[in-house]
Amino acid sequence: MLVNKNHYITIWQDSKNPCVIKVINQNLLPFRFEILSFKKSDEIIRAIKNMAIRGAPLIGVAAAYCLYLAAIEGQTLYKNNLIKFKRYILNKATVLKKSRPTAINLAYVVDLVVHSIKLNVFSSPLPFKSRDKSYVDNFLIEKCIHVLSKEANRLALENIQECKKIGEYGYKVFKEIYIKKKLKCLNILTHCNAGWLACIDYGTATSPIYEAYKKGVNLHVWVEETRPRNQGSLLTAWELKQMNIPHTVITDNAGGYVICKGLVDVVIVGSDRTTLRGDVINKVGTYKTALAASDNKILFFVALPTSSFDPGLDIKNVPIEERSGNEVKYAYGLHNKNFSKVMISNPGSRVKNYSFDITPARLVSGLITNKGIIKPNIKSIKKILAIA
Amino acid sequence: MLVNKNHYITIWQDSKNPCVIKVINQNLLPFRFEILSFKKSDEIIRAIKNMAIRGAPLIGVAAAYCLYLAAIEGQTLYKNNLIKFKRYILNKATVLKKSRPTAINLAYVVDLVVHSIKLNVFSSPLPFKSRDKSYVDNFLIEKCIHVLSKEANRLALENIQECKKIGEYGYKVFKEIYIKKKLKCLNILTHCNAGWLACIDYGTATSPIYEAYKKGVNLHVWVEETRPRNQGSLLTAWELKQMNIPHTVITDNAGGYVICKGLVDVVIVGSDRTTLRGDVINKVGTYKTALAASDNKILFFVALPTSSFDPGLDIKNVPIEERSGNEVKYAYGLHNKNFSKVMISNPGSRVKNYSFDITPARLVSGLITNKGIIKPNIKSIKKILAIA
Repeated sequence: MLVNKNHYITIWQDSKNPCVIKVINQNLLPFRFEILSFKKSDEIIRAIKNMAIRGAPLIGVAAAYCLYLAAIEGQTLYKNNLIKFKRYILNKATVLKKSRPTAINLAYVVDLVVHSIKLNVFSSPLPFKSRDKSYVDNFLIEKCIHVLSKEANRLALENIQECKKIGEYGYKVFKEIYIKKKLKCLNILTHCNAGWLACIDYGTATSPIYEAYKKGVNLHVWVEETRPRNQGSLLTAWELKQMNIPHTVITDNAGGYVICKGLVDVVIVGSDRTTLRGDVINKVGTYKTALAASDNKILFFVALPTSSFDPGLDIKNVPIEERSGNEVKYAYGLHNKNFSKVMISNPGSRVKNYSFDITPARLVSGLITNKGIIKPNIKSIKKILAIA
Repeated sequence: MLVNKNHYITIWQDSKNPCVIKVINQNLLPFRFEILSFKKSDEIIRAIKNMAIRGAPLIGVAAAYCLYLAAIEGQTLYKNNLIKFKRYILNKATVLKKSRPTAINLAYVVDLVVHSIKLNVFSSPLPFKSRDKSYVDNFLIEKCIHVLSKEANRLALENIQECKKIGEYGYKVFKEIYIKKKLKCLNILTHCNAGWLACIDYGTATSPIYEAYKKGVNLHVWVEETRPRNQGSLLTAWELKQMNIPHTVITDNAGGYVICKGLVDVVIVGSDRTTLRGDVINKVGTYKTALAASDNKILFFVALPTSSFDPGLDIKNVPIEERSGNEVKYAYGLHNKNFSKVMISNPGSRVKNYSFDITPARLVSGLITNKGIIKPNIKSIKKILAIA
């Protein structure tokens, strides 16, 4: 999408040096637009942890690039030793999976990529005969790097296409409401950032917004600020502003009021993980907003790529990330052009920072996926995932 | 209640100079404990506007003291001229009523006090005969000051007694839940500050908490931070800490999660205005929290003095205060021992700051008043208010 009228995606391989991965530093937005360059896999892991890289789909793709960088490191560290090289990659995969616990995409992509190199590199027959072990090892290490690079780029492209599709399906929903309610302006409410910054391009929850705006639907977006990290007021608001889309930032608390007041026609959010029954794990606060929508008979949609479904997930056993209490105790932002923080909680009081919550399927009007819009129930979800 | 182990109330007449009104500066809490001294009525109005004085019941009592200071000013300005003195007081009353629009107590107290001086001063027969107009005027002006001082002190005392009663009734509710659920620890959730800082002493929503704690109920309070002004994390948390009551601050968003997770046994909040049908106008976010309680079959109580009912209020016509957007755009707090603010929203984006919302009676389990606990319906409320 556009940044200062130039087109950007959130992560890419440097065109001059493909061993360098570039990302937009999301910790400085909206105040500073900075591109980070990563040459080491650990730099990417650190960026995922400190949320310079954030958003479930983007984290997934970043993880793939991280393994690619790890392979380049492994080649230098363990030249001629495929066993140690493999161990290095697999260890990195394990560390990577632990860097953020809630988003399904991270674990999903890491497993997918590891499976892919096992299949295409380590278990694949050699295209030549050779008794020179070190020659063979080096060939396979080289091939592994190549496969990882290809996989990461493929995953990035796939996510872009998925988001584009979500936009097209979501647009139909928005248009239907717009026409049915004979609106002069379609009022959409969203929580957190399920925008292109959380993905590679277009976003999930924002993709239908961009599509509808492009196709001439007159719209306005209520953006819930999304404490404690304010991804709504910082990132979603910035995205919408860059695209010239009318929007208003409100507190999470005020979301209930605007819905009640009839100022919202539809709610759309993203998802970090969704169960086969259609229960949605997303940024904390989504549940309260879904309740407000349901209480006022306002449609509540969740936009997600099919990779965000977690077929193995038991609703009673969802890993909910608890982040540092400092995110609650302090507010982080800009003061006199510098990044700063202020304490906004009684110093002696205990704090807890639950970062996600679960919105039960019964509160969800529909799931807007890259393969179409479905009801949040086991039958529809299994069908779209082609699970027996 | 206790501040650094000394007993305080929120507003009082200085014992050495009764023309000075003292209040706790709530804008500096919890970081600094400062007592403000007011000699001018406009200083009180300013303090109500900038929220150094806040909380519906406290604002009401402060308004009474404000009119008392206005009368002292009027005496100096319009010596011997009762008509001009009266006009000065009534003008001040009008300005005062506009200083905060949502809380019923402010308008209620101002009307009550104005009525009282009309009745007891201006329409009351003179206790002597005199043809000296200036003597009579001065006598009546003097009497007016005396009546206003008495009224303000009476209102303060009345509020203390009301809050004490709310605590006793609310304690019964808490004890019942504690015993019925066979709890080792009663988990209470509250929003905003309906504590003693919002009143004169004890508080409304906190009074049952203090009472239960005093009587040995093992309890823990979840405190929703209450964006945008964080009265929960700043004031309620500070109050509870001063009283040594176990508590944890969470984001407003996380309130839904802890309720869902079974970590909350009862929710209790205050009210700025309540309709005859039991619809509760309170700090923005209350509605979302009430929805989460209802969705999980958790009892949701509203604690309020009977003066917070507004018999004339039509739910479709509730005045919802919109405060400065800067409260959303910035977070205010402490940085290196100084008060500071940081920008937490995209600079170019529009913001809206709706400060209250309406929780419909159907989501309220009961109203804990100084006259007993009642169901939120027109019959029970009329009965308790002795309205035909």
